[in-house]
Amino acid sequence: MAETPNTPLLDTVDTPTDLRRLKPEQLRQLADELRQETISAVGTTGGHLGSGLGVVELTVAIHYVFDTPNDRLIWDVGHQCYPHKILTGRRDRIRTLRQGGGLSGFTKRSESEYDPFGAAHSSTSISAALGFATASKLAGTPGKGIAVIGDGAMSAGMAYEAMNNAETAGNRLVVILNDNDMSIAPPVGGLSAYLSRMVSSREFLGVREVMKRVAKRLPRRFQSAARKTDEYARGMTMGGTLFEELGFYYVGPIDGHNLDHLIPVLENVRDAAEGPILVHVVTKKGKGYAPAENAADKYHGVQKFDVITGAQAKAPPGPPAYQNVFGEALTKAAASDDRICAITAAMPSGTGLDKFASAHPDRFFDVGIAEQHAVTFAAGLAAQGMRPFCAIYSTFLQRAYDQVVHDVAIQNLPVRFAIDRAGLVGADGATHAGSFDVTYLATLPNFVVMAAADEAELVHMVQTCIEHDSGPIAVRYPRGNGTGVALPEEPVALEIGKGRVVREGKKVAILSLGTRLTEALKAADTLEAKGLSTTVADLRFAKPLDEALIRRLLTSHEVAVTIEENAIGGLGAHVLTMASDEGLTDSGLRIRTMRLPDLFQDQDKPEVQYAEARLDAEAIVDTVLKALRYNEAGVVARA
Amino acid sequence: MAETPNTPLLDTVDTPTDLRRLKPEQLRQLADELRQETISAVGTTGGHLGSGLGVVELTVAIHYVFDTPNDRLIWDVGHQCYPHKILTGRRDRIRTLRQGGGLSGFTKRSESEYDPFGAAHSSTSISAALGFATASKLAGTPGKGIAVIGDGAMSAGMAYEAMNNAETAGNRLVVILNDNDMSIAPPVGGLSAYLSRMVSSREFLGVREVMKRVAKRLPRRFQSAARKTDEYARGMTMGGTLFEELGFYYVGPIDGHNLDHLIPVLENVRDAAEGPILVHVVTKKGKGYAPAENAADKYHGVQKFDVITGAQAKAPPGPPAYQNVFGEALTKAAASDDRICAITAAMPSGTGLDKFASAHPDRFFDVGIAEQHAVTFAAGLAAQGMRPFCAIYSTFLQRAYDQVVHDVAIQNLPVRFAIDRAGLVGADGATHAGSFDVTYLATLPNFVVMAAADEAELVHMVQTCIEHDSGPIAVRYPRGNGTGVALPEEPVALEIGKGRVVREGKKVAILSLGTRLTEALKAADTLEAKGLSTTVADLRFAKPLDEALIRRLLTSHEVAVTIEENAIGGLGAHVLTMASDEGLTDSGLRIRTMRLPDLFQDQDKPEVQYAEARLDAEAIVDTVLKALRYNEAGVVARA
Repeated sequence: MAETPNTPLLDTVDTPTDLRRLKPEQLRQLADELRQETISAVGTTGGHLGSGLGVVELTVAIHYVFDTPNDRLIWDVGHQCYPHKILTGRRDRIRTLRQGGGLSGFTKRSESEYDPFGAAHSSTSISAALGFATASKLAGTPGKGIAVIGDGAMSAGMAYEAMNNAETAGNRLVVILNDNDMSIAPPVGGLSAYLSRMVSSREFLGVREVMKRVAKRLPRRFQSAARKTDEYARGMTMGGTLFEELGFYYVGPIDGHNLDHLIPVLENVRDAAEGPILVHVVTKKGKGYAPAENAADKYHGVQKFDVITGAQAKAPPGPPAYQNVFGEALTKAAASDDRICAITAAMPSGTGLDKFASAHPDRFFDVGIAEQHAVTFAAGLAAQGMRPFCAIYSTFLQRAYDQVVHDVAIQNLPVRFAIDRAGLVGADGATHAGSFDVTYLATLPNFVVMAAADEAELVHMVQTCIEHDSGPIAVRYPRGNGTGVALPEEPVALEIGKGRVVREGKKVAILSLGTRLTEALKAADTLEAKGLSTTVADLRFAKPLDEALIRRLLTSHEVAVTIEENAIGGLGAHVLTMASDEGLTDSGLRIRTMRLPDLFQDQDKPEVQYAEARLDAEAIVDTVLKALRYNEAGVVARA
Repeated sequence: MAETPNTPLLDTVDTPTDLRRLKPEQLRQLADELRQETISAVGTTGGHLGSGLGVVELTVAIHYVFDTPNDRLIWDVGHQCYPHKILTGRRDRIRTLRQGGGLSGFTKRSESEYDPFGAAHSSTSISAALGFATASKLAGTPGKGIAVIGDGAMSAGMAYEAMNNAETAGNRLVVILNDNDMSIAPPVGGLSAYLSRMVSSREFLGVREVMKRVAKRLPRRFQSAARKTDEYARGMTMGGTLFEELGFYYVGPIDGHNLDHLIPVLENVRDAAEGPILVHVVTKKGKGYAPAENAADKYHGVQKFDVITGAQAKAPPGPPAYQNVFGEALTKAAASDDRICAITAAMPSGTGLDKFASAHPDRFFDVGIAEQHAVTFAAGLAAQGMRPFCAIYSTFLQRAYDQVVHDVAIQNLPVRFAIDRAGLVGADGATHAGSFDVTYLATLPNFVVMAAADEAELVHMVQTCIEHDSGPIAVRYPRGNGTGVALPEEPVALEIGKGRVVREGKKVAILSLGTRLTEALKAADTLEAKGLSTTVADLRFAKPLDEALIRRLLTSHEVAVTIEENAIGGLGAHVLTMASDEGLTDSGLRIRTMRLPDLFQDQDKPEVQYAEARLDAEAIVDTVLKALRYNEAGVVARA
């Protein structure tokens, strides 16, 4: 446990109200203490560090200048919100970040009135801020919407859609572009190049110059002095045209670590009579903590670490992470098949595609935070004969659902979806859980939907995807490490729609899809010990179903249980639908479906989450016994 | 039936190969004949007219200049593709447009090699074109990707994501911005204002000037003359910076109806050594047909019409359209509740919100083609205490699925979703069918999902939405007209999760959700005539289920059938899951689920589509009888 830093000034600040009592000249010290406290806290808990360190001064300045929580401050994505949490009444719980029962790693409405809008997926902040601003305007009450959004998040279409609509909010909307030239990976594309040109083509503006620029937006009573400098101010601008063309008044770039600039500029922005205004602030991810500044990823997401050395706790040695098994399998296959290409939406490392990128740079496409484009771009590649793999986390694929339906499924194009982080995700909580993909994909005609039970299965399923040229196909796999099985020497494509029986029994059948197979096998041991001979099948495919296998298992066992790490509407629903279609339920079918519960589960250790979800071995045993009407004494009490 | 126009030159052109044999001076006549043929065809079939008339010259010019189908031409949305179909081997079937078994109203891969990518939802063309261009580049084969996209479609985030990634394709990507200042409704927002400024601030460029601008992108061998005019050309440009900042070379604006300009400019663009290039073409929707040019909607979508007068066939008088019932109910309610606001993504008239817009302009928001922003903007409004209604077609809501999950459902914000065009949609075909919303919404925690069985129910459900402040709620309703029931004087909010029994019987239970209720009642009559006393329930809610009612119906009838106009994973799956959870299947449960089939249905008359989907009264009767094992003689043959 890291020692708590000495923070005499921060100790006097519990909320922004306390902060606003400080004199401007005290803010530098406050920011320094806030930075130390942030480092110390994340050293204890692990989590997102670099982003928060980059906005320490910005956090202080915004709360000092604006009337939070009445002005609605929305941190895009939320990775950078830890200093904000410390300043808004949550310092006493900051060392519970991302722990079960503790603070969320993102902003969250239920935590604080200072979190008016939760975030975790990128690029939502401008839309939400516009909603707040518009509602306040309609109600005639004071209050602005303030969105703080990174340059990486600006590459998402959603941010553009919101900017395109911003003009209606007038001066109630303030967008602060936090430009650190680095989201999770270095950002890509035309927008990024444009921002770099803007920043490099001129020095930071001094506060006097920026104030002149903003001055013409001030209410009339402040304008007398401003008016004569207006022409001069206009003359000196060069950048910002992209934002100005979308209807914003552009201010910047300014040094996001210089409070003497930030405070007066934000004060002017606050008092401006017209808007919307976009403030372009340049920051450094990991600022003020040498190990973070020097790291390639700027300590974007870290394990617990030693504050002095920056050394992160090492994960115990173990099986490889699924993402890397995927990345290596695909990289290897691509060496002998030049039709294979790989697409990521700003997650080259998280998806395990960094290896692919090194080995096959011409066939690797990081499109930035742009899932919609990623999918339809892949559809275009597929239509021209390539074998594209779209590697997107389950939760983020939701952002491209229409593209999956309209551009891929309806056209029956062989786009391969590598769906990482499917199921529960531990510390990242509900916003990052991949709970719905089996449901929302298996309902689509033409789709093949697989789930890998272990890392060897994943290797085979990657090969299955490669060889499946007749339509769309998806393989889902979880966050974290494999089960430790040996990886196959040579991958073998699976027969589409065929499951496998892992263990053959007589009374109980467990039909598993994906990750819960290990727990199913544990449950089978327990049931066997109770005299209940148990079959365990790994169905592999949610669509098409292995109807022959399912039919046999349902009709030849006393009870059948399906299990999947997905919400209602997935495997269980498809098995039940098949069973009722065929009339298998007519004369009695003891069947239960186990699935994710009908609630959004907060962050916790995975094993706690699985227990809460009732998707572990114990819950399987319990479900089987209840279905068989075992009473507490272990005796069957048939109706 | 309109008389076929006299088209001697067009008669010699079956494919673009024929077209390219013509002399440039013949193209004007060809375009005129193509326009007349388009008007005549749509006069016969109805369909989209204004968009096609606006691009007649552009269609001729593109096929004349580029090497289609090897150059991949992608029409964004596809409303404007009828002239393209006439020129690409499909003229003999052009009068089957949008009919069962006929040509699709959109581009479609299975129809022609000249349709490399199907479209119907907007803003996908640049991503797809980039996919084609990239694949050809990787393969080292010739071929460009050409996207023709309207100014309205440019407001969607997806188009921006694609533009942000365009630079990698170099000169293989050509984007033709078809700027008619009018998509389905007049476009909105910053981008639209920007384009208007660009066009109004200077005259169309003459071909000489545009060629000078493009010249510097020509291969070296063409550059000698160009080089000296380069500086001059650069000096005269003013617009296009937004696109240039995203990495495009901007050319325009040019007159999209002047073939003498279009042809040489496109030739230069084709031969340019660098890119990507964006060509800004200004056209007039409905061009060359006075009734269309003079109509407010430019004959965007029309019924059959008289070519001479432009008079459209009137729909027979009948019950009001669902969209108008919705629009009127919401408009009325908003008069006494100033928290109600309404959001549309470029569909003010299609969603029936045009009335709302007139009555409550300050609470009406047309955000352009920007569904993602629409939903999160609504979430922001809801978080600030408003009662926002997001009115989006089922198929288009797919584009905002992540926003529905992440910004609305997880935060449990009371955004109201008015989901129009749910279910099959007739002539618009598979791309516009709303087949999946029950599945993809009812799987989400916190959501309430309703479906209206008739227009009176819709009025009550709108009221239910208004009064439901505790979380997200959706009501789905179909395309087309109501059933003719009387509309209620005063709407009454329904109890959440309570269905209604419409007809009480003993042997057969039909559990209907939404539109199929009428057919269920018809089926009940037939069954009753066969001696099978039939209960019909309108469940109203797919989530939460009316568990008490469902339990009673399942256990007190010999057979139960669920029916819904939605694919697998919806109501039927939820009912089956509940039944197996409760052990109702253990001792025998004769239950069948009727749903949309596992295929994408092509356009046809609604009644034909319902028969094909097996969702009409006849299919219900058939399903019940089969479940009861009636043999052909009408005798029960129990197993």
